[in-house]
Amino acid sequence: MAKYDLDTIRHSTAHLMAHAVSRIYKTHNPQFGIGPVIENGFYYDIDLDVKIHDEDLAKIEKVMQEIIDEKLPIQRKVFSRDESVEFWKQKNQPLKVEVVSGIPQGEEISCYEQGEFIDLCRGPHVENTGHLPKFFKLQSVAGAYWKGDSKNKMLQRIYAVSFTTKKQLEDHLTFLEEAKKRDHRKLGKEMELFHFDQIAPASPFFMPKGTTVYNELIDFMRRIYKKYDYDEVITPQVLDTELWKTSGHYAHYKDNMYLTHADEKEFGIKPMNCPCHMMMFKHYKYSYRDLPMRYADFGRLHRFEAAGAVAGLTRVRTFCQDDAHIFIALKDIQAEIIKLMDMFFVCYDHFGFKDIKVGLSTRPEGKLGDDKTWDIAEEALKGALQKSGQAFHINEGDGAFYGPKIDIQIADAIGRYHQLGTIQLDFQLPERFDLNFTNDQGQEERPVVIHRALLGSLERFFGVYLEHVAGVFPFWLAPEQAVIVPVSTEKHLAFSKNLASELKHLGFRVKVDERNETMGYKTRQIQQSKTPFMLVIGDREMENAAVSIRGYGEQGSKNLTITELKELFTKLNLERVPAKLR
Amino acid sequence: MAKYDLDTIRHSTAHLMAHAVSRIYKTHNPQFGIGPVIENGFYYDIDLDVKIHDEDLAKIEKVMQEIIDEKLPIQRKVFSRDESVEFWKQKNQPLKVEVVSGIPQGEEISCYEQGEFIDLCRGPHVENTGHLPKFFKLQSVAGAYWKGDSKNKMLQRIYAVSFTTKKQLEDHLTFLEEAKKRDHRKLGKEMELFHFDQIAPASPFFMPKGTTVYNELIDFMRRIYKKYDYDEVITPQVLDTELWKTSGHYAHYKDNMYLTHADEKEFGIKPMNCPCHMMMFKHYKYSYRDLPMRYADFGRLHRFEAAGAVAGLTRVRTFCQDDAHIFIALKDIQAEIIKLMDMFFVCYDHFGFKDIKVGLSTRPEGKLGDDKTWDIAEEALKGALQKSGQAFHINEGDGAFYGPKIDIQIADAIGRYHQLGTIQLDFQLPERFDLNFTNDQGQEERPVVIHRALLGSLERFFGVYLEHVAGVFPFWLAPEQAVIVPVSTEKHLAFSKNLASELKHLGFRVKVDERNETMGYKTRQIQQSKTPFMLVIGDREMENAAVSIRGYGEQGSKNLTITELKELFTKLNLERVPAKLR
Repeated sequence: MAKYDLDTIRHSTAHLMAHAVSRIYKTHNPQFGIGPVIENGFYYDIDLDVKIHDEDLAKIEKVMQEIIDEKLPIQRKVFSRDESVEFWKQKNQPLKVEVVSGIPQGEEISCYEQGEFIDLCRGPHVENTGHLPKFFKLQSVAGAYWKGDSKNKMLQRIYAVSFTTKKQLEDHLTFLEEAKKRDHRKLGKEMELFHFDQIAPASPFFMPKGTTVYNELIDFMRRIYKKYDYDEVITPQVLDTELWKTSGHYAHYKDNMYLTHADEKEFGIKPMNCPCHMMMFKHYKYSYRDLPMRYADFGRLHRFEAAGAVAGLTRVRTFCQDDAHIFIALKDIQAEIIKLMDMFFVCYDHFGFKDIKVGLSTRPEGKLGDDKTWDIAEEALKGALQKSGQAFHINEGDGAFYGPKIDIQIADAIGRYHQLGTIQLDFQLPERFDLNFTNDQGQEERPVVIHRALLGSLERFFGVYLEHVAGVFPFWLAPEQAVIVPVSTEKHLAFSKNLASELKHLGFRVKVDERNETMGYKTRQIQQSKTPFMLVIGDREMENAAVSIRGYGEQGSKNLTITELKELFTKLNLERVPAKLR
Repeated sequence: MAKYDLDTIRHSTAHLMAHAVSRIYKTHNPQFGIGPVIENGFYYDIDLDVKIHDEDLAKIEKVMQEIIDEKLPIQRKVFSRDESVEFWKQKNQPLKVEVVSGIPQGEEISCYEQGEFIDLCRGPHVENTGHLPKFFKLQSVAGAYWKGDSKNKMLQRIYAVSFTTKKQLEDHLTFLEEAKKRDHRKLGKEMELFHFDQIAPASPFFMPKGTTVYNELIDFMRRIYKKYDYDEVITPQVLDTELWKTSGHYAHYKDNMYLTHADEKEFGIKPMNCPCHMMMFKHYKYSYRDLPMRYADFGRLHRFEAAGAVAGLTRVRTFCQDDAHIFIALKDIQAEIIKLMDMFFVCYDHFGFKDIKVGLSTRPEGKLGDDKTWDIAEEALKGALQKSGQAFHINEGDGAFYGPKIDIQIADAIGRYHQLGTIQLDFQLPERFDLNFTNDQGQEERPVVIHRALLGSLERFFGVYLEHVAGVFPFWLAPEQAVIVPVSTEKHLAFSKNLASELKHLGFRVKVDERNETMGYKTRQIQQSKTPFMLVIGDREMENAAVSIRGYGEQGSKNLTITELKELFTKLNLERVPAKLR
């Protein structure tokens, strides 16, 4: 089978599935749309007057296997455009008629026939259904508008994965199972972290536990900022759209902005912080002694994304970034990038991201600014990456029109890459806002601006990280760090409450589970909420001023005196700051 | 002179001023609008074809004194409405004509005449200009639209203060002087805390130092929340206006909301957090065991205020509150209010507010809900205030239509009262959102909602508190806690930087002033920025691992070893938490 490449196999397997559907639903005359290859498999859009349920997929799979066993030859047929239109009309396949009608006169149009089934296709395909590996799995059925246009008819789309070896299929199904378990929307609900409501589409409501994690992430960044000399600022959210006319965003980004009116003027809700920081820099007179000036801002941003594009926390309409803008002299860029790379890698490492890809994107066609400045900037970035000792690849011509950039992707625990960090040089905004500082010669000089975010959007990072750790937060970040369970809610409650209040006083997040439920029930619930520690208090513990402690995911428990417990928690909490910066 | 009350004197002094203006600007034929008594004095609106400058006020005052010395009798004259219209027409006083034309036929209209000047007035007035005390002061001239309508002509308004004794006047002028020195807009600029820009009217830009204070205030409230069992949440800012139709705000508050559009629907930027919290409470199934549920939210709010109504940080268009909503069973209200009063007074005391007025507002006409519920609620509030041992007054009938409330006003260092705290019971929102919890009988019960804010708007509190302390923040809240000044930037710089980094590592906000400026210049600048401590490092300090420390406002300095310095700072930083809660 090695003579076929994976795409061809997936393509032929899509036909195989359509063949099976046409056989099973013969009396309903299924009409087929398109069935392209996608990552890990394919899908096919079908117009059918009965609903295909997830339970029906096994039946379709079975018929697909039968057709493989029938070893039907697959034959290519070629028509002219007009013959093809006529052919599909006769076959009563109006969607195919629509597709071929769109092809210019004079082109050859091919079909592939296997047994009683024939499908429009450019090919190539395998030569015989018997050549197809049985390592596919139909995944799900979803509604999809014909041609992706909500004005058209809703079709049924069957998604499938398909591989050439059993192991590949099994590995992929295991991966999907794992990804499903880690789905941050599912965990967010189970762990009572956040939820969504149609009253504010794609705008999360963070419950108390989710808010704790969110605020700890911001506090983490604030501690990092103190170490790396950032200054936090707070800027307005609703501003005169003149601001974005100056920055240039209005022309390109207006459709993604929420607009409103006041004082008979047009105002916009900010989709990014940069123009506010430009205004701030301009407001004061800075000299070279003040630079680099690093403004950090956790301001809430709003970007209109189409209802179809949003998903969980990873694509929302409102979010905060760990955003900063650095105002710097051109000559100092390299030192700053080295400092940035250090900061980024220290933090990613702390969150357990070890597999990191760094890309440097250079001047694109249609860049603004002169070659000399671009030379200096690109060389500075390249040199900084080399000095940082980080492997990196170059994305030639992939920079923004206003400057070169560094993109950083991290791999999560199940090998998926996510872009988190970005470092972008900008020669244009300082120009547009006419920013200057007094250099050491006493002259006015234009600074360069570096846009940078390390976690990126906090909402997105929350989602990515929640999946990375499968809901098992490290102690310092866990919304609840320990639950105290008295063996008897009569005899051991006072002691438990005392312990809780002592630990709270030390800054730890603990609660007492004082419900009248069995120990087994409480244990299961604590495991489900993924709380790092369960502390059980019974007679013996009270006598010895001790706790029976059980870590998340551990089978057994051990005994600690309360003094030892406090030492353990204090030690674990040190991880609020990366070891290198303590 | 005791036979005249203060209002009469102020009224007659307003005529006296108009008289002086008419004498000085005789050839310009000044036309007079209205001249009412206001707090501490009066103003008069004048239509005049030359601009009155602040420098002209002394001249007017001088003529006023001359007219007093002339001891002119003041005589009342009465006209019919029509006679009066005619009279003022002849006097060429069109503004007066407009005023008297608005008075119904048949009413008597009086004037008061003194020498060559006559003014329309209901009276009463003093009998002779010689009876008027000379303890007045013209304060300023400002533009004011006739009848406050921007479609009308702009007049010149002269503001004045006026008292019966010299001491009262002097005390008041001292007070004004002090208030001017403390003006938070002035201090905010001098201390580089915040500024405003026309690109976002009435929306502060907090610079790094202001942001430090702002964030410390939020962190302070978060520490308080941990002690008083609040749960912080994060909620969306842009929501479907259906939300405010449900809450009832849309009908009354729409004009103060910023509206926008998405998904072909109308959305609003939230002007308050309450409806979001109602949605959150509804999303989960709570039982009596979970109550009181206390949601705290530092969400950014936006309210459109007319351009003329905004002022510094005290009246802005965007702000955060230390806002919370408490969901509670009706029977538990009293215990909760006692807990709230404790929390409020602990915090106000910590900020140095000792003079506090508490008002209880009871059921108004047109209240919603039954008398029985109001009886229980009002008795609960009254009982709680009594048990808290706080003096309070009752504002009969002044409650909101949805429930009774407690308002708390604090006096600042120069005796001005500011409303900060509010505690409002609400029976209506739980009704409108159909909120329920399962009570201990297993039945569905409607909770009561308590809206409460302690600092109120953080922006407004920032302004009020900045004026209260005249810019001298306590150590824990100071944007910069100490500045280290090396005597020689060559010999003592390394030692100074080391010390700074040690102190920063301990969490203190310090910087090194390494500029090549004189010690005197640096000392003056540090005093102006009101930094709590200046630490000077010279030879002797380096030898002894010590600093020469000078507190803000102190004349001399003293020596501390670095160990003693750290102990001092650590002790001062304990004030981040009120003593009672440590």
